Amino acid sequence: MKVVEVLHMNGGIGDTSYANNSLLQQKVIQMTKPVTDEAIAGVYAALSPNIISIADLGCSSGPNTFLAVSELMRAVDGARKNLRRHHSPEFHIYLNDLPGNDFNAIFRSLPQYVEGFKQEMGEGFGPCFFNGVPGSFYSRLFPTNALHFVHSSYSLMWLSQVPKGAEENKGNIYLAAASPPCVIKAYYEQFQNDFLTFLKCRSQELIIGGRMVLTILGRKSEDPCSNEGGQIWELLAMALNELVEEGFIEEEKLNTFNIPQYTPSPAEVKLLVEKEGSFSINFLEATNIHWTASEFVDDVRRDHDGYNVTKCMRAVAEPLLVSHFGEGIIEKVFHKYQNKIVDSMTKENTQFFNVTVSVTKTCDS
Amino acid sequence: MKVVEVLHMNGGIGDTSYANNSLLQQKVIQMTKPVTDEAIAGVYAALSPNIISIADLGCSSGPNTFLAVSELMRAVDGARKNLRRHHSPEFHIYLNDLPGNDFNAIFRSLPQYVEGFKQEMGEGFGPCFFNGVPGSFYSRLFPTNALHFVHSSYSLMWLSQVPKGAEENKGNIYLAAASPPCVIKAYYEQFQNDFLTFLKCRSQELIIGGRMVLTILGRKSEDPCSNEGGQIWELLAMALNELVEEGFIEEEKLNTFNIPQYTPSPAEVKLLVEKEGSFSINFLEATNIHWTASEFVDDVRRDHDGYNVTKCMRAVAEPLLVSHFGEGIIEKVFHKYQNKIVDSMTKENTQFFNVTVSVTKTCDS
Repeated sequence: MKVVEVLHMNGGIGDTSYANNSLLQQKVIQMTKPVTDEAIAGVYAALSPNIISIADLGCSSGPNTFLAVSELMRAVDGARKNLRRHHSPEFHIYLNDLPGNDFNAIFRSLPQYVEGFKQEMGEGFGPCFFNGVPGSFYSRLFPTNALHFVHSSYSLMWLSQVPKGAEENKGNIYLAAASPPCVIKAYYEQFQNDFLTFLKCRSQELIIGGRMVLTILGRKSEDPCSNEGGQIWELLAMALNELVEEGFIEEEKLNTFNIPQYTPSPAEVKLLVEKEGSFSINFLEATNIHWTASEFVDDVRRDHDGYNVTKCMRAVAEPLLVSHFGEGIIEKVFHKYQNKIVDSMTKENTQFFNVTVSVTKTCDS
Repeated sequence: MKVVEVLHMNGGIGDTSYANNSLLQQKVIQMTKPVTDEAIAGVYAALSPNIISIADLGCSSGPNTFLAVSELMRAVDGARKNLRRHHSPEFHIYLNDLPGNDFNAIFRSLPQYVEGFKQEMGEGFGPCFFNGVPGSFYSRLFPTNALHFVHSSYSLMWLSQVPKGAEENKGNIYLAAASPPCVIKAYYEQFQNDFLTFLKCRSQELIIGGRMVLTILGRKSEDPCSNEGGQIWELLAMALNELVEEGFIEEEKLNTFNIPQYTPSPAEVKLLVEKEGSFSINFLEATNIHWTASEFVDDVRRDHDGYNVTKCMRAVAEPLLVSHFGEGIIEKVFHKYQNKIVDSMTKENTQFFNVTVSVTKTCDS
């Protein structure tokens, strides 16, 4: 499986689309707002650019695409007013995702969004210019020194490929308690390579003094097999294993399916940023958020909540599953998956963990 | 009708898609290659940028999207070798079209195209970075001084809107011998406003010394109602009028349909460039090309040729027709249109006329 060709959130605006099932990702953007606001306001105050170039990497398509960049532009405009600078910078906004992302949906909703946003911001703001940038962020996406700010939320846990050797992870589809050491090593090495590549590319693209805020689905624990990172995939593995037992999926087919994802700890992120060498860390934290993106789970609505969590996971994982197993089993998989999610939410503390890091580029690598 | 929302070439890669029916536009890009080559090589030689920013405005989706920018990059690389400069510039390529354009199709074919192009160009070329830019070129699309070069082929004859007052053009859908003077004036004024807006926006976006090569579907004659510009639309008008007579289209519906297009003469283009004031003209010419994009029409293949011309026009005009008349009459329209095109090709000299202008930005407007 070529991740670059297969991985994309469900397109369009239908019932199973990412656009309609990304409340969790929205909450995470809101949770990290103080960190991103501080970072981009800092860039603007320090560098005073006439044109501020901002990239959102892994922008997907849907309300979150515009939410993230709106918050960033608001923060710059707030800083400008605080600093009593008369002229607004021009905003050059780059929206990046893999080529399979539904850019048409973004572009077709852009005129209405821009209209509304301009009205909100009032006279003297902008102008802002939007570009779509198709490609993997594990390669160069922008010319040298083209950017002031990079934002990425809930994207960098996706690896550039399924780690070589992951097929030894029999019966599992992600790192789990039963995963053999060689698989754990393969996953970590893939993350290490990918994340270092990411940092090197961004270091070339950001000017000195430019900043990045990255939020990655991760874990607090130092154990890569901790269920903090893998709980949600373990339930999907259980659903797929049942379909093997029932004869709908061949065992060999399941053994060769592994999620191209790694959920790092803050310490792992810190180590790699330091190893790459061109960024200094301003802020690093791990937070958690309930699967339902609410602070508490409503007993009465548990089935409904479970349904929503499943739809969120479906919007994310369906293209991967379809590419490997075909369309035919999709409804069965998600029916079983939903039951397991609801059940798990009754019995366990079902949380996602996020690692957020804010860095400044201090030197060329 | 909002042109920004309605106008786009037929998307996808099917039988009636623009991607599969744009041979004519391809030939025009090839015809103007000496002019564009000279212009972009001149920019590169004079300004020696480390990063060269090139915009193709009205890029559409299909083979021509990549053809135009490939030729431009080849010309820069050729100039670099002639000048014995060791380092290639980085290429920042902006592909612009209206938000309804099929950018997904472009982006999904991009990785394969880039791979092949890099191989063709060999070691030491690039890198090149591609961005999609959705929006009307009758507004600002890029930050101030962001561009070195602008290219646009067969796009600027499209107006930003149907001219106010065009509904007086009863029975016609474009400027024709029978069009009343007020309609001719309305069309010309709309072109004048739009083209001046275009020039002002580009003047802000191009650095001094930057260049533009624009090829516009136009005419040689100074008569705006000359059939040099309107012949192909007159045949469509005849087909639509027949459908009115046959009761498939209401007369009032036809009276309110007008093509948002103006095919200028070289003198009109020159006048407006001079009026705007920030560009100097290096080159201006009118050329012609047969409807079939061949130098001669093959008697034996006339039906087939007519079929291809119709498909080309369908790829261009279908969204406009669907938006105004609905899906229901489309097959009927193009059946009649094809007969008229074949017939016209037998009897007349069926040519499109192109106006190509190459300009340098010499001062801020």
